[in-house]
Amino acid sequence: MRNKINIGILGGGQLARMSLMAAVRMGFEVSILEKQEGSPAGQLTDNEYTGWVDDKKILKNFIENCDVITLENEFIDYHYIEKIEKSGKKVIPSAKTISLIQDKYIQKETLRNKKIPAAKFMSVECDTKFEEVVKELGLPFLLKSRTMGYDGYGNATVYCDEDFKIAIEKLKTRKSKLFAEKFVNFSKELAIMVVRTEKEIATYPVVETVQKDHICKEVIAPADISPEIAEKAKYLAKKAIRAVDGIGLYGVEMFLTKEGAILINELAPRPHNSGHYTIEACYTSQFENHIRSVLGYPLGSTEMIKPAAVMINILGKREGEGFPENMDEVLKEKSVAIHIYGKKKSRVGRKMGHITAIGDKTEAILKKARKAEKIINI
Amino acid sequence: MRNKINIGILGGGQLARMSLMAAVRMGFEVSILEKQEGSPAGQLTDNEYTGWVDDKKILKNFIENCDVITLENEFIDYHYIEKIEKSGKKVIPSAKTISLIQDKYIQKETLRNKKIPAAKFMSVECDTKFEEVVKELGLPFLLKSRTMGYDGYGNATVYCDEDFKIAIEKLKTRKSKLFAEKFVNFSKELAIMVVRTEKEIATYPVVETVQKDHICKEVIAPADISPEIAEKAKYLAKKAIRAVDGIGLYGVEMFLTKEGAILINELAPRPHNSGHYTIEACYTSQFENHIRSVLGYPLGSTEMIKPAAVMINILGKREGEGFPENMDEVLKEKSVAIHIYGKKKSRVGRKMGHITAIGDKTEAILKKARKAEKIINI
Repeated sequence: MRNKINIGILGGGQLARMSLMAAVRMGFEVSILEKQEGSPAGQLTDNEYTGWVDDKKILKNFIENCDVITLENEFIDYHYIEKIEKSGKKVIPSAKTISLIQDKYIQKETLRNKKIPAAKFMSVECDTKFEEVVKELGLPFLLKSRTMGYDGYGNATVYCDEDFKIAIEKLKTRKSKLFAEKFVNFSKELAIMVVRTEKEIATYPVVETVQKDHICKEVIAPADISPEIAEKAKYLAKKAIRAVDGIGLYGVEMFLTKEGAILINELAPRPHNSGHYTIEACYTSQFENHIRSVLGYPLGSTEMIKPAAVMINILGKREGEGFPENMDEVLKEKSVAIHIYGKKKSRVGRKMGHITAIGDKTEAILKKARKAEKIINI
Repeated sequence: MRNKINIGILGGGQLARMSLMAAVRMGFEVSILEKQEGSPAGQLTDNEYTGWVDDKKILKNFIENCDVITLENEFIDYHYIEKIEKSGKKVIPSAKTISLIQDKYIQKETLRNKKIPAAKFMSVECDTKFEEVVKELGLPFLLKSRTMGYDGYGNATVYCDEDFKIAIEKLKTRKSKLFAEKFVNFSKELAIMVVRTEKEIATYPVVETVQKDHICKEVIAPADISPEIAEKAKYLAKKAIRAVDGIGLYGVEMFLTKEGAILINELAPRPHNSGHYTIEACYTSQFENHIRSVLGYPLGSTEMIKPAAVMINILGKREGEGFPENMDEVLKEKSVAIHIYGKKKSRVGRKMGHITAIGDKTEAILKKARKAEKIINI
């Protein structure tokens, strides 16, 4: 084995950037493959490969330079991951796991086969009629792209036949097959990070995620739920990750229904926005445990350092430079941590950074973090 | 003002590396000037300048690319800092401050002029006799290089006339004038980080530093001292930084004597080994406050998150690669944070990284950190 270990990440966005920082702190090298040069992660390493998995030459160079490979999104066709595996390099998560997650219909079938509770769903083909779906799932229901959906892109809520037609037309442009899902009238959206190696499995605390316009806006850690529900959520999250043969780091999104049931919403085979708080709030961040799990190394403690943590996403408020004009103003809020992702350009609603605050009481730190978020001009 | 701010650091070692990481997390750009390519900090930025302050062309390019400039050691002749200032770019700490710190004799005179307590000292010229020094300072005394001393290099303890002659011969090779200092029979060595802008001054907790062979081995935060002594130490540390007109981040080393007096030992105009624990242990690390102070921005909270923190330096145990052979073994110690600096080569006694542990009780976390340090093979 070479002394210095090089970890390859497919993708160079903020998730790769924060994993890179955790890896670098421990002295590992990181290689980044991303379509454009100077990506949030690519700008932090000399091992920057510009191109994508469909460029055989670039991919070959990238693979040869890495000891192990991971990824920051689930949108890479698992056949490419298989190719990398066939070249002899380990990919975590594996092609098999990605194949069970990236098509949400298959993901849901996989969970159903293991009797893991989730919203009822059905396949939607070209000839599927509105009435058939209503008969199966009731109204309203969700129409979803099977692949490539994120932050609300690729989803539509259907209340009537006309909605159905419009949604199908709209989602067709995304070149993905569709499926329909029962609408869940939830009381809270929850999430858990799960990290797993061949030897260990660990969960981070259950958090509440608050979405606005289908994008995660705030995360409250831990979620204000009973210990019984928290235990059940952790149990189901672990079961879900085992169901997809998952090794590595996973975000598990869930619904807590008004009746107190937990339904798995979605799995993400990578660091997750709901786990950003762990950088400041836990002994070992999701990003460090991402790196540890990819290497098959012992996991770090997922315990929180303080009783409460909040994370607020910094979403672009304007078109223009990807750096805030008024950092000096933002930093007046003494004990919040500001993360800016180094994206070249901002646009309205784009994830540009995040703010974390930790402390003893959720309310007090939420106030601070919200104040900082309100001020920032990015 | 350009939207993205570029902070230049003179030097690319571990202190620059950790300052860079804090800057990057907040979205700033960092430029590194270092003699060799691929330095611990240089490897993390595209803005890597290879050369030194005496290379006019490189320095000019570097200065032009930066909005503000700082440094990671006090060994750069302050005349170079003056030149940068004359080019119109701000340097924090300023040439004036560096001129008052980098020559330890001048540093001690500056503190004495402000009546800040420190060990008695005197100049040593070519014709200074052993008896003259003994008469003034007693035995033993220390003979020190006025400039370029660190980690015990440039110091010698003198017990007799023969020691004196040997020490003078040895220290002469360092091409620095000498001075002598009264030997302090201390009960503890203490240190404090002070950070100061035009508007604010803040101190981190007083810590105890434990040296082995003149190199900082362990840091205990906070030091086990009375609140009165802690207050006095903070008061003197701030006074010392004001005495050198210090803006930016400073390490202040002190002795606590057996009689309970505090004597200032040395000032360092930069992040300091005794402040590494702040990365995990404080709301805002010394490195983040370094960056904030260099920009003249509001300072972050210097408060500790947990009651106790310890830091242990990872010193090279062998010659060879600068990366541990057994990271997987080291990471078994669940809740310690391992920092490896990315130096290409290790050698016995070289600072290769550090370990931090935080918690409720010093004893328990010290045990964990020591265990991890014992295992690591670097």
